[in-house]
Amino acid sequence: MEKEIFQRSKMEDLIKRRFFYDISFSIYGGIAGLYDMGPMGCAMKANIINIWRKHFILEEQMLEVDCSILTPEPVLKASGHVDRFSDYMVKDVVTQDCFRVDHLIKAHIEKLIKGNSSDTLLPKSGGHNGDSHVKSSSNFEISNGDIRKVNQKDYIGTDKSVDKIYLVKEYETILTQLDDYKPAQFQELIRKLDIKSPVSGNDLSAPLPFNLMFNTNIGPSGLIKGYLRPETAQGIFVNFKRLLEFNQGKLPFAAAQIGNAFRNEISPRSGLLRVREFTMAEIEHFVDPSDKSHPKFEEISTLKLKLFPAQEQLNGGIAQHYHIQEAVDKKMIANETLAYYMGRIYLFLTKIGVSADKIRFRQHMNNEMAHYACDCWDAECLTSYGWVECVGCADRSCYDLIQHHKATGIKLVSEKALSQPIVKEVTEIQVKKEYLGKVFKKDSKDVLLYFSLLNEEEISILVKKFEEEGKIKITLPANGRDLEISKDMIYVKRYEKKLYVEEITPSVIEPSFGIGRIMYSVLEHNFKMREDDKRTYFSLPSSVSPYKCSILPLSNNSSFKPLIKILSKSLTALSISHKVDSSAGSIGRRYARTDEIAIPFAITIDFDSLVATPTVTLRERDSMLQIRANMDEISQLISDLCDDKITWADVQILYPQFVQQEATKSFD
Amino acid sequence: MEKEIFQRSKMEDLIKRRFFYDISFSIYGGIAGLYDMGPMGCAMKANIINIWRKHFILEEQMLEVDCSILTPEPVLKASGHVDRFSDYMVKDVVTQDCFRVDHLIKAHIEKLIKGNSSDTLLPKSGGHNGDSHVKSSSNFEISNGDIRKVNQKDYIGTDKSVDKIYLVKEYETILTQLDDYKPAQFQELIRKLDIKSPVSGNDLSAPLPFNLMFNTNIGPSGLIKGYLRPETAQGIFVNFKRLLEFNQGKLPFAAAQIGNAFRNEISPRSGLLRVREFTMAEIEHFVDPSDKSHPKFEEISTLKLKLFPAQEQLNGGIAQHYHIQEAVDKKMIANETLAYYMGRIYLFLTKIGVSADKIRFRQHMNNEMAHYACDCWDAECLTSYGWVECVGCADRSCYDLIQHHKATGIKLVSEKALSQPIVKEVTEIQVKKEYLGKVFKKDSKDVLLYFSLLNEEEISILVKKFEEEGKIKITLPANGRDLEISKDMIYVKRYEKKLYVEEITPSVIEPSFGIGRIMYSVLEHNFKMREDDKRTYFSLPSSVSPYKCSILPLSNNSSFKPLIKILSKSLTALSISHKVDSSAGSIGRRYARTDEIAIPFAITIDFDSLVATPTVTLRERDSMLQIRANMDEISQLISDLCDDKITWADVQILYPQFVQQEATKSFD
Repeated sequence: MEKEIFQRSKMEDLIKRRFFYDISFSIYGGIAGLYDMGPMGCAMKANIINIWRKHFILEEQMLEVDCSILTPEPVLKASGHVDRFSDYMVKDVVTQDCFRVDHLIKAHIEKLIKGNSSDTLLPKSGGHNGDSHVKSSSNFEISNGDIRKVNQKDYIGTDKSVDKIYLVKEYETILTQLDDYKPAQFQELIRKLDIKSPVSGNDLSAPLPFNLMFNTNIGPSGLIKGYLRPETAQGIFVNFKRLLEFNQGKLPFAAAQIGNAFRNEISPRSGLLRVREFTMAEIEHFVDPSDKSHPKFEEISTLKLKLFPAQEQLNGGIAQHYHIQEAVDKKMIANETLAYYMGRIYLFLTKIGVSADKIRFRQHMNNEMAHYACDCWDAECLTSYGWVECVGCADRSCYDLIQHHKATGIKLVSEKALSQPIVKEVTEIQVKKEYLGKVFKKDSKDVLLYFSLLNEEEISILVKKFEEEGKIKITLPANGRDLEISKDMIYVKRYEKKLYVEEITPSVIEPSFGIGRIMYSVLEHNFKMREDDKRTYFSLPSSVSPYKCSILPLSNNSSFKPLIKILSKSLTALSISHKVDSSAGSIGRRYARTDEIAIPFAITIDFDSLVATPTVTLRERDSMLQIRANMDEISQLISDLCDDKITWADVQILYPQFVQQEATKSFD
Repeated sequence: MEKEIFQRSKMEDLIKRRFFYDISFSIYGGIAGLYDMGPMGCAMKANIINIWRKHFILEEQMLEVDCSILTPEPVLKASGHVDRFSDYMVKDVVTQDCFRVDHLIKAHIEKLIKGNSSDTLLPKSGGHNGDSHVKSSSNFEISNGDIRKVNQKDYIGTDKSVDKIYLVKEYETILTQLDDYKPAQFQELIRKLDIKSPVSGNDLSAPLPFNLMFNTNIGPSGLIKGYLRPETAQGIFVNFKRLLEFNQGKLPFAAAQIGNAFRNEISPRSGLLRVREFTMAEIEHFVDPSDKSHPKFEEISTLKLKLFPAQEQLNGGIAQHYHIQEAVDKKMIANETLAYYMGRIYLFLTKIGVSADKIRFRQHMNNEMAHYACDCWDAECLTSYGWVECVGCADRSCYDLIQHHKATGIKLVSEKALSQPIVKEVTEIQVKKEYLGKVFKKDSKDVLLYFSLLNEEEISILVKKFEEEGKIKITLPANGRDLEISKDMIYVKRYEKKLYVEEITPSVIEPSFGIGRIMYSVLEHNFKMREDDKRTYFSLPSSVSPYKCSILPLSNNSSFKPLIKILSKSLTALSISHKVDSSAGSIGRRYARTDEIAIPFAITIDFDSLVATPTVTLRERDSMLQIRANMDEISQLISDLCDDKITWADVQILYPQFVQQEATKSFD
């Protein structure tokens, strides 16, 4: 059963029909990249988030925050998003339709490769095609040629003419390099391969950068430019001082945030995998850069993870299983804290129903890693769209805190007690007061900020330059203006300072979860079809299932009603979400309906329930087996099953099995 | 202790210092109306939302959804937000500073009244001043003269000269009518009273409408105009068909949504009470308009609520307690379902810590009720800002569903089986095919839509007009274009139809919760100060407290560490959030610190814990009393206390009391 071919359209039909989720505003024609979670998707998502909260925030004593979505421009200017959070697009010169240029070229080349290899080069089902490339679209997380590696492997096994091989090799080289292409290179390639609009066949414009942030204006004057946050992380960084203080000044600590982020994708696709509005759960773990060990590392060090290091990707190797301890010892994973989170991510994903054999951790290649990151591993889940990045786990070093420090002049550091005080010679460049107001006017604050941000080395270079050239040129960080500062405007102050503490800018380890992508993977990995009647259902873990249990009266007989009420009340008292289905259909049909929405347990009230000590039957979704138990103990039993205090196997031993009501047609 | 004067600045200091919440992006100077929840506020908010979910969604078997924040323009055009979701503002003609005109005039007049009445007319503490007017700013929920009623009452008791009384009365009349003012009237009043910018004293511009929605563009072409949703409700309405289907076509049912909404307030103020980004929890209960009874009405009918009906407000009366049953019988509350929710809202608010004596339900006056609403009651909480609208509870009738039907042509109705089929004469106006493509071209679809939306009465009027005048003029609903239709373009089709079901557009009862305002009220109502040392703290219910318990080792002694670890693990296993405070301070000081963040229970590990069968002490926040218990039973005990399975009073009987560690200084 497990081995049968996955039929995505069947699953999508079920998701739509039972309203797990669907395209937003569809009565108005719908908007690409926006989805509404229906009751089943919403409950499932809430369950996943609750488990996440318990698994990470509660277990690790993290500081959860909930920051604004609306973000003023200077914050995202400092973080680099205003300047660099862009994709390149080309426009159909006639219709003005927009296409993401790398996707367009990839799809085109993959089609060419496919043509050259007579349709054998690319796997047919499951689509390692252009669409499989669903990794994050930003320059921050440039996606890599993993898919092409698969292509290469497939290619090796084929028997083609040398010419074709040559061409295919050339195409594959282009694909590998595409992420590093500059606009002129994209344009050259479009010309060379004569790529047209795939919709109309019209010519395409030159590539234009398109910033992926949604912009708006804050306040009635329209003067405060703002964006919808493209990630939740910045909200944590700008609150670093408050959080450090909350943690009584001590490192390490982790802050976490669950919330929505927004990216104005050029061409949203692949269902929940590339959308314009999505829920993220992000952790920022602040740690002393000189000690990235983790106190609880031992708890996960013996776990085996499937790792796909950058080196293996380069060599055309494959992902392999390693003990986490081994990967850290071999310096494959940069440090214990990063590795600890990778282990915890793996445990989380498997807990909520991602198949263990469909998880791998892929290390970012040097060319796709954000320039500030030391190391980055994506937890990828294998779906019918290929390997999908579901969790990023990066060591962002101290990049973000430094950037916000530079932009605001406010030190985002923690203090580390020195074992013994040190005496330090300090050199400062101070601007003479008389020049501040008169000469620099409005720029005075930024001039002071400029000099206050210099480190020792930079100061000594500038002092030398002042002495040699009599003046220097500086660029103000806030507005990029160039100013000339002459020697007579400043004086150099030198003094000795006794230091008892050292100021350090913490490194940040960031596990970042895309809840929608994880949810999609869980759905795909748990989509099943009954062998006999081909009915489809989701075998979700009970902790993730939208409802834990259903109550099914065998018929519309009014004598069942009081029992339904009693049962519903006792389930509610134990916080067990449940659904009463007293619709007309046969009991078998109603079981199928509750299976579809992944309800793990069904209580059936039948005529044997209408006695002094009522009994009911309890059916388990995956095995479809039933037992009979007293009605007054059933709610607690379901609670224990959902909390893993008892297994279904145990229940079958403890309670008498029951022959399905389907067989006893007289009741229907 | 309860009676002491509330000191808002002391509470705000505590909120900021322990990072319950604070202004967003403050290292960048901050943005008015945007707040970040710190660890304490975030945990408290998450707890309130979880209780809400259990109290409403689980108990009432509601369908929870999670819809997009980004909303395309046509949806909000249909709902009326694009045209009417505005406030009027005036600009300082020199500085361009913006002011909300009604707030500005109110503040000005209230100052005048205050001057005329020698400072006795308005209550001094708690500020029934302009700032207290924190009800929603939209024209949809125009706020009313409740505050002025208080003023009038105060006035009656004063002894002033007739002249002053006359002037004050005139001012008060203006205040009462201000909500209905047109721009010209605002301008006239500004001229008459010579109102200037309160900041600069400069002249003010004419009043301009300012739409409160944040706008943006969706997609790379910039052609799809969109807004950030100003309420979550519309997401539910546009999904009505899917939700009805999910509920197997049956009425009544309720859908719910928890999520963020955005309003670009002209002048955000009063902390969390008037902000630009906020979390709402909304319920849309769909019910047959001919039967608004509620099956569970009995469960709340004997509750007593403080009601302030519109009539009492008009008569200068006061809010009084009524049994819900009585209020429905007297037609004070329009129907059982509305009343049922009012009862449930009251139970929710008191459960999470709002003081019962600081809740009232104020009915909307006719002039402030949205034109489509039949009845609307606001649950208001009394705070230092005055009575604050925290929950709106409105019967929106069928307005929203009709509007979206009109805009899309998609029927948003439910079918009701008729007891016996009826034969109905149907008249339809059909447009002849030959005119559609040729004459109406692109408008064809909208012309068809126009005629399909007509009801029987409208059709008979049009048919008559066609016969009498030979042509009619129509306005297309989609784009507002006027078209002339002549008699020869259409034919009238009449036939008999046998109907087995009746189509009905459900009424919507909408309880709508502002989570931030509720949270603020809970904080204010639970802010306390110790009588002896004036230390401040929050006596939040344990269900709402950010952490349930703290672990305090008496000193830094390393032998306590293993015990901390064991305790922390057993608390985590029971999902009890907790905080370990092993900082240096004295135990008394650390108790004060945990009190500040509302932790109801503190476990202290002392030297008596370092024995074969370790014991610890358990301290309760409000009483400050301690008991001693075995360490291995303490986690379960706290769990039972938090779940109300045992009271603190019981615990004091069952366990030996313990004399505070504060007294035993030798340990410190």
